[in-house]
Amino acid sequence: MKVLYETAEVKRWRRKHSGSVGFVPTMGYLHEGHVELIRRARAENKNVAVSIFVNPTQFGPREDFAAYPRDPERDLSLLKQEKVDVVFMPDAEEIYPPQSNTWVEVGSVTERLEDAFRPGHFRGVATVVAKLFGIVEPTRAYFGQKDAQQLVVIRKMVDDLNMNVEVVAVPTVRELDGLAMSSRNVYLDPEERESAVVLYKALSRAQKLWGKGERSAELLRKEITSLIESEPKATIDYVSIADPETLEELEQIEDHALVSMAVRIGKTRLIDSMTLGK
Amino acid sequence: MKVLYETAEVKRWRRKHSGSVGFVPTMGYLHEGHVELIRRARAENKNVAVSIFVNPTQFGPREDFAAYPRDPERDLSLLKQEKVDVVFMPDAEEIYPPQSNTWVEVGSVTERLEDAFRPGHFRGVATVVAKLFGIVEPTRAYFGQKDAQQLVVIRKMVDDLNMNVEVVAVPTVRELDGLAMSSRNVYLDPEERESAVVLYKALSRAQKLWGKGERSAELLRKEITSLIESEPKATIDYVSIADPETLEELEQIEDHALVSMAVRIGKTRLIDSMTLGK
Repeated sequence: MKVLYETAEVKRWRRKHSGSVGFVPTMGYLHEGHVELIRRARAENKNVAVSIFVNPTQFGPREDFAAYPRDPERDLSLLKQEKVDVVFMPDAEEIYPPQSNTWVEVGSVTERLEDAFRPGHFRGVATVVAKLFGIVEPTRAYFGQKDAQQLVVIRKMVDDLNMNVEVVAVPTVRELDGLAMSSRNVYLDPEERESAVVLYKALSRAQKLWGKGERSAELLRKEITSLIESEPKATIDYVSIADPETLEELEQIEDHALVSMAVRIGKTRLIDSMTLGK
Repeated sequence: MKVLYETAEVKRWRRKHSGSVGFVPTMGYLHEGHVELIRRARAENKNVAVSIFVNPTQFGPREDFAAYPRDPERDLSLLKQEKVDVVFMPDAEEIYPPQSNTWVEVGSVTERLEDAFRPGHFRGVATVVAKLFGIVEPTRAYFGQKDAQQLVVIRKMVDDLNMNVEVVAVPTVRELDGLAMSSRNVYLDPEERESAVVLYKALSRAQKLWGKGERSAELLRKEITSLIESEPKATIDYVSIADPETLEELEQIEDHALVSMAVRIGKTRLIDSMTLGK
């Protein structure tokens, strides 16, 4: 496994490897969710590239960029076990040299849900993913469904800019009690960790009602909201029942809907999501 | 020569042609300047692709989008003569489908010179070039030096987003009297056409002074300005002596400078430029 720190090295590696490249961009502190992305990439491509880069531009000024958990040594040993071919671990200057000043702005689908709480977040995400795609030139890129809006934004960028990469969505990996795997789960103290399962409980409730034929988005929103509100440590940022492509809030669900939410458990902000129908 | 109208067709063509691809993006109404770009692309690549697309998003609301000269039949016969392999002639919906909403914003270098007179112009340019690069995936892309700021913006986008394409700058082709070739020259009536040579005269004056050892940017600006102002049909938008990479205005010229200007001759807005030093 090659560990590379410079853009030029990765570009050189890419020129030497003409077969398919599966790419998993990460912010490190890898968990089972990442492993699932990597295994999928490993199964579907001749080469697998993983990036570890805590992207400063997708964090707001009062967010947890500095505190974001990091453990490169453990990450690398895990990536080696998963037979990754190349790991790209740039520093911030490598991705954002001082004179760098180009941004990818995805409209509409970025202006909902997370955007109200993390303004500019998706500008940072779209830009760094565009830069990484430029460096790695992947055949396929793998993203988790947990970050549902991110997935929509990246698909939209790839479509709109005609990027030659297949975006692959991989189902969310969950703890035994249903909590979605996330690097930020490490922030939770034991009591908060127990409370955090409320997100999954709420999603499961929505899915059950859907299964019984409920099609009113407003009713589902209310059910989810009151279930989460019954958890004393939980504070809702948003609960959304939206069109999975446009992210527009629905009144009535036709064929399918994206249920997504952001909930703070103590000081830790968690997101989770699930698709109803197809 | 293949003439293709759809993105998917061009992508399919590209997959079948693994050798180098030289790409010349144009807005059509081709002149000797374009021919120069194409010949250079022809000499340096196995395949040559040309796009003809009058890009609506780089025109301001009161600009000449509707009036911009078009002659696809003549263009195609010329491209065939030059042994172009593939011509991409999309309509606006093909490049900007209704749901499309992703923009490439290049900072700093877009916020000078032309931007004061054509706000948003370079956002349109950067976005369409990114889209076309995504479709064509060229090895090399060819741009004229006449549009000096455009060249700087595209180089910056390619660098910042790590795009895998070599940007090649091709010297400006001029009429016998020095007027830079431009599709917009067709707007000039015979008297204006004579007046239009004042841009080249001004550039030549700057070059002569530079050759004699003049290094004060302010003095060159004044010389150029007064020469242009002596032409009754000419109105200056700007005269700039700037750093060729950052486009920051200079006081004193060290090794090199970009002299650029926008001048209206009657109702026709013309730009021209020249590099002093290296």
